[in-house]
Amino acid sequence: MQRVGVIMAGGGGTRFWPLSRQQTPKQLLNLTGRAPMICETFDRMARVIEPGNIYIVTSALQADGVLEALAGRTDRSRLLTEPEPKDTAPCIGYAAAVIESRHGQSLMLVTPSDHYIRDTDRLTEVWETALDAAENGDRLVTVGIRPDRPATAYGYIRYDTETDAPVRRVFSFHEKPDLETAARYLSSGDYAWNSGMFIWRTDTILSRLREHAPDIADAVSRIGKAVGTQQEQAVIADAFHQMRRISIDYAVMEPCAAQDGVLLVPGNFGWNDVGSWDMIEALRQPDSNGNVLLGDALALDSRDCVIIARDRFVSAVDMDGLVIVQTPDAVMVCRKDKAQNVKKIVEALQKAGRTDLL
Amino acid sequence: MQRVGVIMAGGGGTRFWPLSRQQTPKQLLNLTGRAPMICETFDRMARVIEPGNIYIVTSALQADGVLEALAGRTDRSRLLTEPEPKDTAPCIGYAAAVIESRHGQSLMLVTPSDHYIRDTDRLTEVWETALDAAENGDRLVTVGIRPDRPATAYGYIRYDTETDAPVRRVFSFHEKPDLETAARYLSSGDYAWNSGMFIWRTDTILSRLREHAPDIADAVSRIGKAVGTQQEQAVIADAFHQMRRISIDYAVMEPCAAQDGVLLVPGNFGWNDVGSWDMIEALRQPDSNGNVLLGDALALDSRDCVIIARDRFVSAVDMDGLVIVQTPDAVMVCRKDKAQNVKKIVEALQKAGRTDLL
Repeated sequence: MQRVGVIMAGGGGTRFWPLSRQQTPKQLLNLTGRAPMICETFDRMARVIEPGNIYIVTSALQADGVLEALAGRTDRSRLLTEPEPKDTAPCIGYAAAVIESRHGQSLMLVTPSDHYIRDTDRLTEVWETALDAAENGDRLVTVGIRPDRPATAYGYIRYDTETDAPVRRVFSFHEKPDLETAARYLSSGDYAWNSGMFIWRTDTILSRLREHAPDIADAVSRIGKAVGTQQEQAVIADAFHQMRRISIDYAVMEPCAAQDGVLLVPGNFGWNDVGSWDMIEALRQPDSNGNVLLGDALALDSRDCVIIARDRFVSAVDMDGLVIVQTPDAVMVCRKDKAQNVKKIVEALQKAGRTDLL
Repeated sequence: MQRVGVIMAGGGGTRFWPLSRQQTPKQLLNLTGRAPMICETFDRMARVIEPGNIYIVTSALQADGVLEALAGRTDRSRLLTEPEPKDTAPCIGYAAAVIESRHGQSLMLVTPSDHYIRDTDRLTEVWETALDAAENGDRLVTVGIRPDRPATAYGYIRYDTETDAPVRRVFSFHEKPDLETAARYLSSGDYAWNSGMFIWRTDTILSRLREHAPDIADAVSRIGKAVGTQQEQAVIADAFHQMRRISIDYAVMEPCAAQDGVLLVPGNFGWNDVGSWDMIEALRQPDSNGNVLLGDALALDSRDCVIIARDRFVSAVDMDGLVIVQTPDAVMVCRKDKAQNVKKIVEALQKAGRTDLL
């Protein structure tokens, strides 16, 4: 069965403000120093899927930036533009409908665009296992990451850990837990982190959407019928306007898991969703003082700091555990252990109508 | 006797980096939000001395900046340019020589250019008292500040505290003490902070220089003879090249105090030498969270911070006791309780040859 890939690149990315902006979300940032994250995602996917069969779903605002980043890898014909953000269920339904229409029934691999993977070889093996499992069955397949700490920033998946088989049954999906719950999940050994990667046949996912989210399935079906017609864009706009905002986890994965309809391939491939500034350390080797310094940056008598100097000299003295980010129009200072609070600054800017800085 | 003022404005000002630079030292900064410190100094002095009789001693590098700041108050004819920095004894000797040459024997008031004074009326009274004492005698007069904390950043003067007289005898000058010594000075009640303000007759200071620093007096005397001649600039350059680097306290005040040759007028007029970023709070009222925010600055869940945003948006979240300064070419972050460590950054820049940032 033909393999088709979908890279979800619609994220707004306030957590890397001021480096990330509405038009330059995290997936377009070159946080690793090698290439924008979306390029690395594309190249990883191209190991298992023909590059011409890889689609990118993004927003109109980000389309040009995505194309620019992926120049030489793909073109506008593989760009699926969402008229408005409606979370992952409409996004995935939209992609599945377009793929079925253009390629016929296909084997579909969906992945976020902005995660870091250290061991691409291992990921490739995991994906191949998952693609096999999805192709030879009618279940939804996901990839689970074995947790090594009680992270509260990730969703969790309870799955069958009584076996060593490469593919396991999923029992249930769980939202981001509080620390106590996360610690319980971790020590039980029965949970994996939800990687946001999904593998299934297009007919399988469209059937499951029909079963568990018929309203989304209706809208998606209308899109599928309009693909290649003059009405395509208008139908997509209308369908997205009508669809509710809902994640694929809520809409499909949870109810399917309850009916033994979801499989999981566990994997350890140095995965990090790089959800906030403190995660930069996963991408960049800190120096002997624990500092990550990018650009024209100086840290004296300081440790465990992240300093990013885009186009000016940035200096710190006597600092511990700080994140300092300089861009051409803004400076942001936060604590590394509270890096998620950057969003408070973004919210304050939104409230103040500072669109110049968003 | 004619009164002549001297504002010493030669300071390099690394302690307010990155706002202060070689060409824009602290005295040219508008830290109060009203006017550059040198302007406020000039205006205070103009209360007791004819503005046309006020001289400013500065470096060649800073001369244009000084003139620009004082535009409308004075002109280049009252600017005394030091060819190289040799500390306060050569500076004061040079000024005294020029003044005697141009104005004859005069009553001379010397003050730093970069101190903050809250109560100008009270300072004016103190100066009048000091000018009277200096005019009617042959002793060197200084102004002492009653300490309210065991400051280690100031020199101390031990003086006669057994009387309530407005003018007191000075026993000795003391360098910046360690904290223990400063605490002892404070609790003894016998010490004043050295304000760096001096009042004397030109003939008195020139005689004392002759007595205690004859080499400086020789050089100064050569300058005096050259004033108004074609050789003036060449002689000044040569004299400064020959003079050693020495403060007026070491060269003259200390030995004279030992010979009962120094008087002190104690005063409380809200004096602050604004020696480092943490002193900004003396100039700018902090908000209810203890933050001083200047420019396009935002502090969320933060307290006791100083944030200066010159031309960009600067934001901080979850910060306590930090100083963040943004200028068009640099960002600096330090702890308020270690604000003096800014000099470590400047030293590192000097070592690295980063003249673009000095």
